[in-house]
Amino acid sequence: MSNKIGNKVSVSIFGQSHSAAIGCVIEGLPAGFRPNIERIQADLDRRRGGKNRYSTQRKESDIPEIISGLVGGYTCGAPLCAIFPNADTKSNDYANLRDIPRPGHADYTAYVKTKGYNDIRGGGEYSGRLTLPLTFAGALIKQILEEKGIYIGAHIASIGLISDSLYDPVYLTRQDLEPNPFPTIDSDSGIAMEEYMTAIAEDGDSAGGIIECAAIGVPAGLGSPMFEGIEGEIAKIIFGIPAIKGIEFGAGFDVSRMKGSENNDPFEYDNGKVVTSTNNAGGILGGITNGMPIIFRCAVKPTPSIAKEQNSVSLSGAVNVPLKITGRHDPCIVPRAVPVVEAACAIAIINQL
Amino acid sequence: MSNKIGNKVSVSIFGQSHSAAIGCVIEGLPAGFRPNIERIQADLDRRRGGKNRYSTQRKESDIPEIISGLVGGYTCGAPLCAIFPNADTKSNDYANLRDIPRPGHADYTAYVKTKGYNDIRGGGEYSGRLTLPLTFAGALIKQILEEKGIYIGAHIASIGLISDSLYDPVYLTRQDLEPNPFPTIDSDSGIAMEEYMTAIAEDGDSAGGIIECAAIGVPAGLGSPMFEGIEGEIAKIIFGIPAIKGIEFGAGFDVSRMKGSENNDPFEYDNGKVVTSTNNAGGILGGITNGMPIIFRCAVKPTPSIAKEQNSVSLSGAVNVPLKITGRHDPCIVPRAVPVVEAACAIAIINQL
Amino acid sequence: MSNKIGNKVSVSIFGQSHSAAIGCVIEGLPAGFRPNIERIQADLDRRRGGKNRYSTQRKESDIPEIISGLVGGYTCGAPLCAIFPNADTKSNDYANLRDIPRPGHADYTAYVKTKGYNDIRGGGEYSGRLTLPLTFAGALIKQILEEKGIYIGAHIASIGLISDSLYDPVYLTRQDLEPNPFPTIDSDSGIAMEEYMTAIAEDGDSAGGIIECAAIGVPAGLGSPMFEGIEGEIAKIIFGIPAIKGIEFGAGFDVSRMKGSENNDPFEYDNGKVVTSTNNAGGILGGITNGMPIIFRCAVKPTPSIAKEQNSVSLSGAVNVPLKITGRHDPCIVPRAVPVVEAACAIAIINQL
Amino acid sequence: MSNKIGNKVSVSIFGQSHSAAIGCVIEGLPAGFRPNIERIQADLDRRRGGKNRYSTQRKESDIPEIISGLVGGYTCGAPLCAIFPNADTKSNDYANLRDIPRPGHADYTAYVKTKGYNDIRGGGEYSGRLTLPLTFAGALIKQILEEKGIYIGAHIASIGLISDSLYDPVYLTRQDLEPNPFPTIDSDSGIAMEEYMTAIAEDGDSAGGIIECAAIGVPAGLGSPMFEGIEGEIAKIIFGIPAIKGIEFGAGFDVSRMKGSENNDPFEYDNGKVVTSTNNAGGILGGITNGMPIIFRCAVKPTPSIAKEQNSVSLSGAVNVPLKITGRHDPCIVPRAVPVVEAACAIAIINQL
Repeated sequence: MSNKIGNKVSVSIFGQSHSAAIGCVIEGLPAGFRPNIERIQADLDRRRGGKNRYSTQRKESDIPEIISGLVGGYTCGAPLCAIFPNADTKSNDYANLRDIPRPGHADYTAYVKTKGYNDIRGGGEYSGRLTLPLTFAGALIKQILEEKGIYIGAHIASIGLISDSLYDPVYLTRQDLEPNPFPTIDSDSGIAMEEYMTAIAEDGDSAGGIIECAAIGVPAGLGSPMFEGIEGEIAKIIFGIPAIKGIEFGAGFDVSRMKGSENNDPFEYDNGKVVTSTNNAGGILGGITNGMPIIFRCAVKPTPSIAKEQNSVSLSGAVNVPLKITGRHDPCIVPRAVPVVEAACAIAIINQL
Repeated sequence: MSNKIGNKVSVSIFGQSHSAAIGCVIEGLPAGFRPNIERIQADLDRRRGGKNRYSTQRKESDIPEIISGLVGGYTCGAPLCAIFPNADTKSNDYANLRDIPRPGHADYTAYVKTKGYNDIRGGGEYSGRLTLPLTFAGALIKQILEEKGIYIGAHIASIGLISDSLYDPVYLTRQDLEPNPFPTIDSDSGIAMEEYMTAIAEDGDSAGGIIECAAIGVPAGLGSPMFEGIEGEIAKIIFGIPAIKGIEFGAGFDVSRMKGSENNDPFEYDNGKVVTSTNNAGGILGGITNGMPIIFRCAVKPTPSIAKEQNSVSLSGAVNVPLKITGRHDPCIVPRAVPVVEAACAIAIINQL
Repeated sequence: MSNKIGNKVSVSIFGQSHSAAIGCVIEGLPAGFRPNIERIQADLDRRRGGKNRYSTQRKESDIPEIISGLVGGYTCGAPLCAIFPNADTKSNDYANLRDIPRPGHADYTAYVKTKGYNDIRGGGEYSGRLTLPLTFAGALIKQILEEKGIYIGAHIASIGLISDSLYDPVYLTRQDLEPNPFPTIDSDSGIAMEEYMTAIAEDGDSAGGIIECAAIGVPAGLGSPMFEGIEGEIAKIIFGIPAIKGIEFGAGFDVSRMKGSENNDPFEYDNGKVVTSTNNAGGILGGITNGMPIIFRCAVKPTPSIAKEQNSVSLSGAVNVPLKITGRHDPCIVPRAVPVVEAACAIAIINQL
Repeated sequence: MSNKIGNKVSVSIFGQSHSAAIGCVIEGLPAGFRPNIERIQADLDRRRGGKNRYSTQRKESDIPEIISGLVGGYTCGAPLCAIFPNADTKSNDYANLRDIPRPGHADYTAYVKTKGYNDIRGGGEYSGRLTLPLTFAGALIKQILEEKGIYIGAHIASIGLISDSLYDPVYLTRQDLEPNPFPTIDSDSGIAMEEYMTAIAEDGDSAGGIIECAAIGVPAGLGSPMFEGIEGEIAKIIFGIPAIKGIEFGAGFDVSRMKGSENNDPFEYDNGKVVTSTNNAGGILGGITNGMPIIFRCAVKPTPSIAKEQNSVSLSGAVNVPLKITGRHDPCIVPRAVPVVEAACAIAIINQL
């Protein structure tokens, strides 16, 4: 049982939504690296979301306290620990959830796993808030990767039925990966998504979506066949993000409908470098990078906490009961999850270098 | 770099397509278990495929030699090693592939990774043949799981555009998971798939598909939040199977288009047991099992080796060249991959008990 | 590179001697356990040492802030993170140590490893202060072990040439493992050791010693042959304590001078239970516990920081230079290391259950 | 539970003394390395021992069959699996040992661990025969280390009360590490040891000893503080060798009797390189190499199988019974363990590079 990921550069996450603090320990960072704290904060702010109808009303500054591993601004080779105090915690909102588990949440499964001792306040360790230290770690690691010419970005591929364009899998540039204020490629798509999220919030419901992530500049030859292939390494971390229910690389599930002659990416020389003229493989062949952009998409389920009444059970009474969740919740976490997916990707890639 | 998976019951795979043998080492098996070797062989035979137009012509008996870990038919607590000699190897077929990598294969990425020292014969360690010891390990482990009331099965959800029915995610029974001669739920779908594969083989092309896998009887409360969640653990092993490019759990990518009120699985009591009336979660909430069937689907890409001419490069000449692959290859590995997916699922689940 | 130990119940240590704080993350604790914080503090106080001539003059309260994993006094199943702020840090004492490494210290090796970016202040992550969170973790884990009837204790077997009695390896009781104010079995030995440490401190020198540790109540059958044997698991953690240079189990190095007929521990029945009439094996045969007390001794080197002038080098000048270390340091850490060794033993054992 | 060691270059051991074969899987080897098989065989022959009164009479060729990972004599990047068939197995010798455990052996602990399903024949997986694939792996890895200028050697420091000289910890050369026919530095010591072993064999008893091992050319800066320090990494593998009961580095247990001013190794410049003028640290400070020879000694217990009658128990009858072991056994495994210790050291070091 571990909230730790990575063998070379590892990230351990700790904390619960309403514990004194949450945080992470990053081990294996190179000594002598000077992280740009402002840029890390920018990613944390992207994750925090803005003031709008479709984001949580919880007020947290989300400013890290780096309590070890950094001396005079430089990594010193010791594990870097950063913590984020939990300030705005209204724990009494959650009193009856221990008895009546919320559908789609981990309330019931955590109850069974811990025999009822799980921290129910704010979702405990199952809260999306735990993605904050994950984003911190990933944002720092992205900077190390950039020094090696590796750039990572993500955008919303869809929310509900509204789609964004997808990344060009062959000619993707660093420019394309820069974050937008609302993380879509097409601004029209973004506007439609914002309208949809506002409407669904007013209806007391929630929405899911798909996030597409890419990494460029990853050298060919990283990874391994079978159990340490790149797809599996990325997938394991991505599924560590709460609410992810699917992942696909390159052409993904579409490969099931393609013929080999359509799916195979032809090799060709481009200025003396071996490239592929298409990128259905998403940059990965046999679990190993081929030098093309790594591209994957992951499915985010709609926020389980909705205002509409739902059917649930009373565990104490062993009877079916209706449940009405009060309090404010994000009707859609997809926009806020974009930098989290980038962070997960960064952690996966640095462990392959 | 490791071909090993699992912390409690681990499986290490070794060998190349044309090395003296391939095999696996299974550690952590309980002592005193008596595996049914015939039933293991039945799974190996399912994986081997029959005599038909759409399966490889390589002749191998696929009978394991168990060289350690079993005494008098019972596991003795020591690592169990099984090997499969490679008999029918025509290594000269592969001579020029080191120079001209096959599109969609690991030839190029393995070349870069090993600086050209990779075993090119028969695909080396990237060959689908490596799924043979994986299937062996999984077939043995499935028997241990069955003693705990856990049953695993899989079927072809689609090949090309031809779909099978899907498992009933709520009322799935042990009966439903029994293997069919051709692994579809609907025999009509199976017949159409076989016709399609034969046709595509005659056209010198290949087909991909989707495999759906389920596990029933898994108790609630297994798994962990974040990086050791059940989805990630299963995904990591499934992506260890060559040719897998995507995985989704429960409603999978469809969650992106659902509202929370549609996706949330309501809890209810059924004979004193907490169940959900739908199973969009695929049996997993917060990375932890909820007692409902675990259900996932994975996308299999079309076999990269096709008879049609393709564009590739000569690595020695640094020029673009056409490539025509000779020899016989499976035009579709999806049917043979069904017991492999079951095996991967079994390994993932036993490591959560 | 990792400061994490343990697969089932893991402990990660972070922090440097003069960072904002040090701490640990403990994963895999059972949910619903209520640690006795006062008893943990008692172990932290044993490690802190008293007001005497032979202990460091650094003033720290050594009171943990538990920032996650505990709800209402009970473990909740989430990783438990505890931090200890570093208050009394006089970092300017260490300015020139980056250039002139102290003999016997990690100054030079850390310099090479981190290319000079290591945190030199107070020994950085190589400081004995890092044993504080280790002791915390072990003290908590000892309580869990006690609920299973397993008791752990340690005492000073020797400091310099002054020896204590050793534990009775066969008839050791819980009573024998209770901590004494000065951790020797014989009070006369303790008095002699204290006098010796005071004298050696006045001489500007330092002393080493041997600590003996035992665990009783450990059931037979834990552990594994070869690389996961109990001896190796304990040794790996014990060598994680700075200053340890040797470890031996049971008769230890004396086995080299014994005959088989002397060393073999005869089996016999004692009230229906299989025991051995001697315990040269230290409770471990073939890497597996045999139900007898687990007993080991470890060698602690004399504190490297001494007042006497020593020969060293100036790394900047590439010349030999004399070094005179100022500031106050423990002339002997052996008494303070006793609860640390117990902690390491506890972590090793809980990971075998 | 695992017989696997190493994160970068890992070695998994499998097999039992009388299973069809024993073997190992080595993962993480660099591709394109051409091992010298004859030199590997030389180490296997050193471990096999000669024709004399004090070595086992079991006849095995100990010639490896390399069944994967090697193509045309070069490593191909895939896991390298080597197996050794077990030919000369007389399994009926061991029939009653399941009921009457041999003192000093793992018979009883294995029985408890496996509920009696352990392979009792020839010691099963607890047999010293399992050190054969370990020696194979280490011998191969030593060759890779030699290409990096790292040389490893070991000798018998003592058998019973007869001592050899020790390595010069500062001025140790590659020449000094070359294997002798009988592995002592002083030939007189060797002769005395051989006489002693012959005498003790005739007396139906057995002898233990100490092996000293050294590695030169290891660059400074390898390793980590705390739980991944070099001492712990080496110790964990060394304790994986059956019969080892203690390990000490550099001055080892003697540090307990030294003052800081005696134990600290002064730094000095030697031809522009930082060295220490003594080497009490055994080449390791703060868990990290300092560039001086790595030196450690380990204690080997006397072979538990002796001809003299011993006290044991009948597990079936729950009564005390005398035991007389028949068959031939090594009266002292120390000479044969010398290349095994070298192998373990090599595996530890390559995982630090």
